[in-house]
Amino acid sequence: MICTARSRGFVRVLDILKRAGGRYVSGPSMAAELGISRVAVWKHVRKIRSFGYEVESGRRLGYRLAGGAAGPLPWEILDGLSTRKMGKRIHYFESLDSTQAYALRIAGEKREDGAVVIARRQTAGRGRMGRRWISPHGGVWLSVITRPARGGPNTVLPLAASVALAEAIEAAAGVRPELKWPNDVLVNGGKVAGILVDASVSPGGVDHAVIGVGINLDVKAGEISRRTGRAAASLSDHADAAPAIVREFLSALERATDSLDAGGSAGILSRWTGLSCTVGRNISVETGGGTVRGRALCVDPDGALVLDCNGDRRRVVSGDLVP
Amino acid sequence: MICTARSRGFVRVLDILKRAGGRYVSGPSMAAELGISRVAVWKHVRKIRSFGYEVESGRRLGYRLAGGAAGPLPWEILDGLSTRKMGKRIHYFESLDSTQAYALRIAGEKREDGAVVIARRQTAGRGRMGRRWISPHGGVWLSVITRPARGGPNTVLPLAASVALAEAIEAAAGVRPELKWPNDVLVNGGKVAGILVDASVSPGGVDHAVIGVGINLDVKAGEISRRTGRAAASLSDHADAAPAIVREFLSALERATDSLDAGGSAGILSRWTGLSCTVGRNISVETGGGTVRGRALCVDPDGALVLDCNGDRRRVVSGDLVP
Repeated sequence: MICTARSRGFVRVLDILKRAGGRYVSGPSMAAELGISRVAVWKHVRKIRSFGYEVESGRRLGYRLAGGAAGPLPWEILDGLSTRKMGKRIHYFESLDSTQAYALRIAGEKREDGAVVIARRQTAGRGRMGRRWISPHGGVWLSVITRPARGGPNTVLPLAASVALAEAIEAAAGVRPELKWPNDVLVNGGKVAGILVDASVSPGGVDHAVIGVGINLDVKAGEISRRTGRAAASLSDHADAAPAIVREFLSALERATDSLDAGGSAGILSRWTGLSCTVGRNISVETGGGTVRGRALCVDPDGALVLDCNGDRRRVVSGDLVP
Repeated sequence: MICTARSRGFVRVLDILKRAGGRYVSGPSMAAELGISRVAVWKHVRKIRSFGYEVESGRRLGYRLAGGAAGPLPWEILDGLSTRKMGKRIHYFESLDSTQAYALRIAGEKREDGAVVIARRQTAGRGRMGRRWISPHGGVWLSVITRPARGGPNTVLPLAASVALAEAIEAAAGVRPELKWPNDVLVNGGKVAGILVDASVSPGGVDHAVIGVGINLDVKAGEISRRTGRAAASLSDHADAAPAIVREFLSALERATDSLDAGGSAGILSRWTGLSCTVGRNISVETGGGTVRGRALCVDPDGALVLDCNGDRRRVVSGDLVP
């Protein structure tokens, strides 16, 4: 389903029920307000319930909203979204192989600039380095399509997206995450979210980039840790915050890409460094060319990690931190 | 099917038949040479025939190879391939949604560095800018996985791949193509091949890049022109050259990426310019930000097209040339 600010029928019914603040609204009055039949109202209510909303109905009383629905539902994200472009068009799926694969397929189309692809669960979710990303119901799995204004390529983008995501989680859930190079978002040492960036390369730049985001919002972290062999964490106490986290993330990401488009990455790099649990530590990075050990000094203007290896400065652009 | 230099059973039978130069080889002698049963030899012959090879069999005579098979068959490509890494591992499919999508899924795995994905036909082939790529049986549809040594990003890669492909077509088919910015390979003004480059972006560089190649080798160019609205051409007279074209392409591409890894792009840019039918012409480029008109002056060191627009120099990194 594609959702935009132009509300669909059931969203308009949902809006009326929300406005009523838990009081009953009669079917005929909703039908009159929306210019639709009472049967159409009833069908919309059925659809609203299918997303997990609790709608009570009573003879002669009508309908009332008794409980909200969890998860990154597009109309909840769009409600109050103040971006210029990012997230104004949301492709929503109950289940999808991979939001990143889907976004890459459609990313070349002009109208998809800024579009977001969301799936309630992924059957073949993909992480960095070809790894599987476990994506059950309860998490936030999405991909954002961007088109760099000057054609990029901007290799600071993965760090910019990590900062945007950490700040969104703090703003919407009140939890302050740490960032682990390259693209991990941690809470209490466990990975709660990750970022994946794919780009279509053109001579001299990129046509478009797709930013994949996975947030372990309300998932079983223990099971993910066991299956991946890496410490995972979940934000289960903040399961209701999904739409707010996504909304904040899209706003922060739009500001960040605007600033990268304008040539400004210094602010992003310094915010990344402020949130980082990598810089200043002695670390080991597994790269394609072997393991590099040293003290993480900083990220350079391109986003690469700079290590001091016994007085030797080494620049690392691709790899995994190992314990 | 995954093919490497370590031959599979049916390829070893095929090699014996090829060595015999059209003469009959008895089943028992092949069985003895390969240390397999006669039933196994017969099963291998059946498999060989399934790829389009003509194998005649005669009572008491055995088998003889009466005719080769067309298309980019992996063992034919591997036979004489002199690369260090590129193409040494080939994932081969009779039919696949998209070689690029498949390659992107596996590209993160270390052992896939240099691997090639080939499909005889694609059901959802993808071109630049989210366009559909019509990929019937008879063409060459493949994707190559590369891992830039220093992490790139190298935005000259699409031009390097175009040059490698044009040179491979000239070497193996004796036809000299022209190159149209950004990624088109033309023969007599019609598009015979195209290049698509996707990269996984890491902070400061890329983890890996996937180079997609489509060659209209033995396809109906008229039908493709009609369906895409763009002039297509086919190399139907050179249908037998598929393995040689791919082999030459992989060798040229490995040399080009080695040279980009070593920081040398000047040679590639000058060869691209030499083959270009874009540089020196008055052109219009449709970009995300509108149409840019001017005289194409050159490609800059990053691969971007530089235009002289009434004395104003404009740099274009993403777009389509329009007539």
